[in-house]
Amino acid sequence: LSLKGNLLVGQAGGPSSVINSSLYGVIEEAKKYDQITGIFGTIHGIEGILEEDLIDLKAQSQEDIEGLKRTPGAALRACRYMLKSSEPDDDDIMRVYEVFRKYNIRYFIYNGGNDSMDTANKIYKAAELMEYDIRVMGVPKTVDNDLEGTDYCPGNGSSAKYLATLVRESALHNESMYTSEPITVLVTVGRNAGWLPAACALANNGKDEAPHIICFPEVPFDKDSFVNKVKKVYDTVGGVFIITGEGLTDKHGSYVMVKSGDVATDPFGHPELGAVGDYLKNLLEERLKLKTRVIVPDISQQAAMHWASATDIEYGELAGRTAVSAAIEGFSGFMPSIRVGKDNTTYNELVELETVANAERRVPDSYINREGTFVTDDFINYIAPFIQGDVKLPMENGLPVYTRLKRIPVVCK
Amino acid sequence: LSLKGNLLVGQAGGPSSVINSSLYGVIEEAKKYDQITGIFGTIHGIEGILEEDLIDLKAQSQEDIEGLKRTPGAALRACRYMLKSSEPDDDDIMRVYEVFRKYNIRYFIYNGGNDSMDTANKIYKAAELMEYDIRVMGVPKTVDNDLEGTDYCPGNGSSAKYLATLVRESALHNESMYTSEPITVLVTVGRNAGWLPAACALANNGKDEAPHIICFPEVPFDKDSFVNKVKKVYDTVGGVFIITGEGLTDKHGSYVMVKSGDVATDPFGHPELGAVGDYLKNLLEERLKLKTRVIVPDISQQAAMHWASATDIEYGELAGRTAVSAAIEGFSGFMPSIRVGKDNTTYNELVELETVANAERRVPDSYINREGTFVTDDFINYIAPFIQGDVKLPMENGLPVYTRLKRIPVVCK
Repeated sequence: LSLKGNLLVGQAGGPSSVINSSLYGVIEEAKKYDQITGIFGTIHGIEGILEEDLIDLKAQSQEDIEGLKRTPGAALRACRYMLKSSEPDDDDIMRVYEVFRKYNIRYFIYNGGNDSMDTANKIYKAAELMEYDIRVMGVPKTVDNDLEGTDYCPGNGSSAKYLATLVRESALHNESMYTSEPITVLVTVGRNAGWLPAACALANNGKDEAPHIICFPEVPFDKDSFVNKVKKVYDTVGGVFIITGEGLTDKHGSYVMVKSGDVATDPFGHPELGAVGDYLKNLLEERLKLKTRVIVPDISQQAAMHWASATDIEYGELAGRTAVSAAIEGFSGFMPSIRVGKDNTTYNELVELETVANAERRVPDSYINREGTFVTDDFINYIAPFIQGDVKLPMENGLPVYTRLKRIPVVCK
Repeated sequence: LSLKGNLLVGQAGGPSSVINSSLYGVIEEAKKYDQITGIFGTIHGIEGILEEDLIDLKAQSQEDIEGLKRTPGAALRACRYMLKSSEPDDDDIMRVYEVFRKYNIRYFIYNGGNDSMDTANKIYKAAELMEYDIRVMGVPKTVDNDLEGTDYCPGNGSSAKYLATLVRESALHNESMYTSEPITVLVTVGRNAGWLPAACALANNGKDEAPHIICFPEVPFDKDSFVNKVKKVYDTVGGVFIITGEGLTDKHGSYVMVKSGDVATDPFGHPELGAVGDYLKNLLEERLKLKTRVIVPDISQQAAMHWASATDIEYGELAGRTAVSAAIEGFSGFMPSIRVGKDNTTYNELVELETVANAERRVPDSYINREGTFVTDDFINYIAPFIQGDVKLPMENGLPVYTRLKRIPVVCK
C-alpha cells in the first residue's frame, strides 16, 4: 500500500477566495508523511505540467505558506485548459505521464470545479494503461457550489457572505434613490445553478427588505409573471431589488437572453451569459417604464478575501488535507465530499471523480419557494453556517497585504 | 446674531459610505444649541420639502442615531431633483419658503455634491427677496472628490480604500488566469475628474504589480499610445491591469465612447458613460488580439461600508458639525472646506456655495506622471491619510447590521 515519491498539486478554473486555503491544506498535510518526499506545484494547472513549469513548495518560507490562507486568486495560477482524452494515443496524456515519470510524481492533487475534475479523472483513468503507479485526488473548488456528489463546495460560503453584504449595502443605497431609479437587478455568477442568487437571500432581514425577487436558473423564466411580480412589489415597497443568476431559460430550456445565431462563447463553448442583466432591464423599462439599474459584481464575488468567511476558509483547508490523507491511505480517483448532517458537518465521504466530472448539482426544489421567486427557510438553515466567522487580514497603510509564492523551480534529481 | 427656530437637514445626489456620518454630525451638533429647537429631516432632499415629507430627528432613538455612523446609503433618502431658479417667480422656490415659514425652519443644511450645492445656493440667494431670515449651509459629499473650494470631500477615502483593495484582490485573481484572459479594465465612477482612478494606484505595491496603467479623464486619450503602452506592459509582465474613469475624451475634448447622434443621457442631461469599459475592450481585442475582461464595480464603491475608512467617517461627521456650528456663528451661503496643510488637516476654511455650485475640481498635473499613465508620489502622499483606519461593524449571523430611521412625521405646532 505504501507508495513513495513526490506530490504535485495544481489549481484550475476560476479561483475562489479559499482555493489557496486548500493549497495550504495540501502542503501542510503532505509534510506529515514520509512517503511524500518532494512537494511540487504546477503553474497554470495542466499547462504547467505540459511545459514542465513546476515550482518547489517545500522551498517556500513558512510565512508565505501561512499567507496562503489569507490570499485570494490562485497562488500557483490556474488554467482553463482541459485534457480531451485519457487514451494513450492522446499527445497531452502521454506528455503528462512523461513528466510524472521524469519528476517521480506519485501523488497528483488537482483543485478545481467540474471541468477540472474531469481532467483529474482522465489522468486517473490513464494510470493503469500507462503502467504507472500514481494516486490522483480531486479537491472541490467552486463559488458556484454546483459540484455533484458533495453538499457543499469550499469557496461558496465566502462568495455568499460577500454578495449578501453587498446586497444589504447596495439596497440601502438604492432605496435612497427610489424616486429616480426604483429598480435594481444584481447578476451573480452561476450559469445553470442558482446557489449564489439563492445566498443573496441572506441579506433579507425583514418583510419588505431586499432582495425582493430571486430569478433561479432552475425555474423556467416567464416574462409576464415576472413583470407582474415586480409591479406588485413596486406598488407595495416603492422599489424592487432583483437577483438573478447568469443563465435564465424559458420553458423550452433555451437561454432567454441569447438570440439565435448570435451566441458568443467562452473557451469551453459555453455561451456568454452576462447579458441577462441588460435583458431584464430592457424588459422592465419597456413594460413598466421604471428606470432599472444593473449591477454585475464580477470578480469581487470570487476574490473579496477582505470579507471572506472564516468557516469557508477552514473547509477549504480541510478539503486539501483530506485529499492528501486519503491518497496516503490508498485511495485514487476520488474527491472529498461533505454530507450535511444534523450534528458535526465535515468531509465524511469520498466521491468518485467519475461522478463529479462535468456534472452540475442544481438547487433542489425544497430550497425554492412554491412561486419560484425566493428561497425557503430550509435553504437559509443550510447555507447560514458556511458564512460565519470573519477574517483578520494583516494590514499595511490601510490595505490588506497578500502573499505571492516564489518561483523556485523544481530541480530534477 | 442669535436666530431661534428649527433646523432642517437633507441629503442629495448619489450617497457615499459616510453621508450618514455627516447627518450624525449635524444632529449631534445641533443638539448643543438652545437656538435650535426642533431637528427635522427632509425625505428625498428637496422633494421632501416640496411635498412636506419631513421627519422628526429628535424623536429617533439614540441607538439609531449612533447607527448612522456605520450605515451606507442616505438614511433620509436622497434625490436628483434640483431647483432651477432662485427667483421669486419660480414655483419651487416659492414652495420651499412656504414650507420653511410653516415649520419655522431657520437653519437649512444640505449635504451633497456640486449639483446639490447649486440648489443650496439658490435657496440661500432667495432668502433676502423672500424677506425670510434663514441660514443655509452646504455639507460636502462626493466619492468623486471633485468639489471646488476644498482639497478633500468626505466619501472619497472610503471609496478609495475599497477600490484599491478590490484592485489588489482582483489582480491576484486575474494573474491566475493570464493564459486565458490577460487584460483587465476596471471602470471607476468619476465623470470628468480622475480622483478615484488615481486612488486605485494605492493597490500597487511593487514594480510589476497592478494597476499598470491609469486612464485619467484629465489626460486626452490617444488610441495609439494607449495600445502601445498596453503592449509594452503585456510583453514584460504577461498581463495588464488598467484603470479608467467613466469619461475619457480625445484631444478635441469629445468623449471617446459616445457616438454622435446616439447619446443616452441621465436625468441631468449628462451622457451615460459606463460604456468606456466596452470601448477599451473592443479596442484592445481588435488591435492586440488579447482577451480583455471589463470590471464595473458600480454601487459597491459608494456603499461598501464594511470596508470603509475610519478616517473618512470622522471627516464626514466633522463636516456636518462644522456646517451647524458655522451657521450658529452667523454664516450663511457657505460650505466647510479642508485645506490640506503640513500638520493638522481639518476643516479650516469656509467656501462660498457660489464657488462650489456646478464647478468641478479635476486632478492637478502635479498628481499625474509625465506620461499621463500613472500617479505621482505626491498624490499617494496626499490620499494615503484618508484611507486609514478600519470600521468595526455590529454583526449578526455573519452579516453586518445596519440602521433605518423611523418615519416619525414632524407635527407642526
